[in-house]
Amino acid sequence: MDGSEQLSKRQLQALQTRENLLNAGRTVFLENGFQKATMTQINKLAHTGYGTAYVYFKNKDDLFTELMETIMQKMYKVAALPFKPRTKEEALAQILEQTRLFMQSALEEKEVMKVVKEAIGVSAIVEDKWNSIRARFIAGITKDIEFVQKSGLAKKNFDATLIAKGWFYMNEQMMWQLVLGEIEQDLDAVAENLTALYTGGLYK
Amino acid sequence: MDGSEQLSKRQLQALQTRENLLNAGRTVFLENGFQKATMTQINKLAHTGYGTAYVYFKNKDDLFTELMETIMQKMYKVAALPFKPRTKEEALAQILEQTRLFMQSALEEKEVMKVVKEAIGVSAIVEDKWNSIRARFIAGITKDIEFVQKSGLAKKNFDATLIAKGWFYMNEQMMWQLVLGEIEQDLDAVAENLTALYTGGLYK
Repeated sequence: MDGSEQLSKRQLQALQTRENLLNAGRTVFLENGFQKATMTQINKLAHTGYGTAYVYFKNKDDLFTELMETIMQKMYKVAALPFKPRTKEEALAQILEQTRLFMQSALEEKEVMKVVKEAIGVSAIVEDKWNSIRARFIAGITKDIEFVQKSGLAKKNFDATLIAKGWFYMNEQMMWQLVLGEIEQDLDAVAENLTALYTGGLYK
Repeated sequence: MDGSEQLSKRQLQALQTRENLLNAGRTVFLENGFQKATMTQINKLAHTGYGTAYVYFKNKDDLFTELMETIMQKMYKVAALPFKPRTKEEALAQILEQTRLFMQSALEEKEVMKVVKEAIGVSAIVEDKWNSIRARFIAGITKDIEFVQKSGLAKKNFDATLIAKGWFYMNEQMMWQLVLGEIEQDLDAVAENLTALYTGGLYK
């Protein structure tokens, strides 16, 4: 190795195999749900040799958390949008947009998100992954709240972490309801009502 | 039968057997968790004849939802407290008290609630039961919101059902966090922060 980032042919092949397995995994999980999916089915669909999936992933839970990470990228981007509002109105507009985008991203991957919901309930590995995703969102929201508390836009008497958790949980549960089709209101009504409640409570 | 509510000796015995099975179930679920618990263990601990548990309950999921119902009684009582505040301050005080009692009731049954959390993830029957418990709470909160919207204490531009759902989910997730010991703040701080956010947003 000469320290350059050039990948050898073998490394490229390995990346390709991994990608094939992830794509096959996506299809198998969508077709069978989490509990019924097996590594054998994934191997077969990816046309990789017997047991190859286990070279790349410890088990189906591990492969599945990789798929989750890919899906969450879009939602992470929403959460990572810079948040430096100068007025209350700017803050409200941005929070409304983030809330809407968060739920919309989930709805665009509705079928996979249904499998995620199933998997969280039955796999400790997937549950851990989901908790770390949650923690990432909550950390971002906490920082945003602290910013507007310091700048004087938001009330200072709130515990930023607690409020961040509460706000995220509200969004998360509504997102699941939208994904599972368990709510009659549309995404816009949901985002508007939640944002108005949250900002009405938090901001001066 | 003469129409009186007097129970025959046989009926009393049946009730007693049912009660024994529920008590045994509680112990078995607490010891083994939901997934590992079996009807055979419950039958054995209740000293009822082989297969008797199946006379009273369709399966362990069914028996478990009965246990949930008993535990939820205390929380239902909190939710059903009459809510007719005449001032904003009265409303805030009462909501804070309800929030605190809801979480406290769950913490008093902490170990069983942990099993409930596990069971919701793996049993469709238990998940359905939990959803119907949720619906009951949300219906109560919706009525309360409509009352204060009509009386002019709360802002009218909110969709009462959506806000009720958001508020309940926030409380529910915080309750799980408290039950699982995944939150550092204490019950009082949680109840105060959530209530201040919610009432600050909803009330005029």
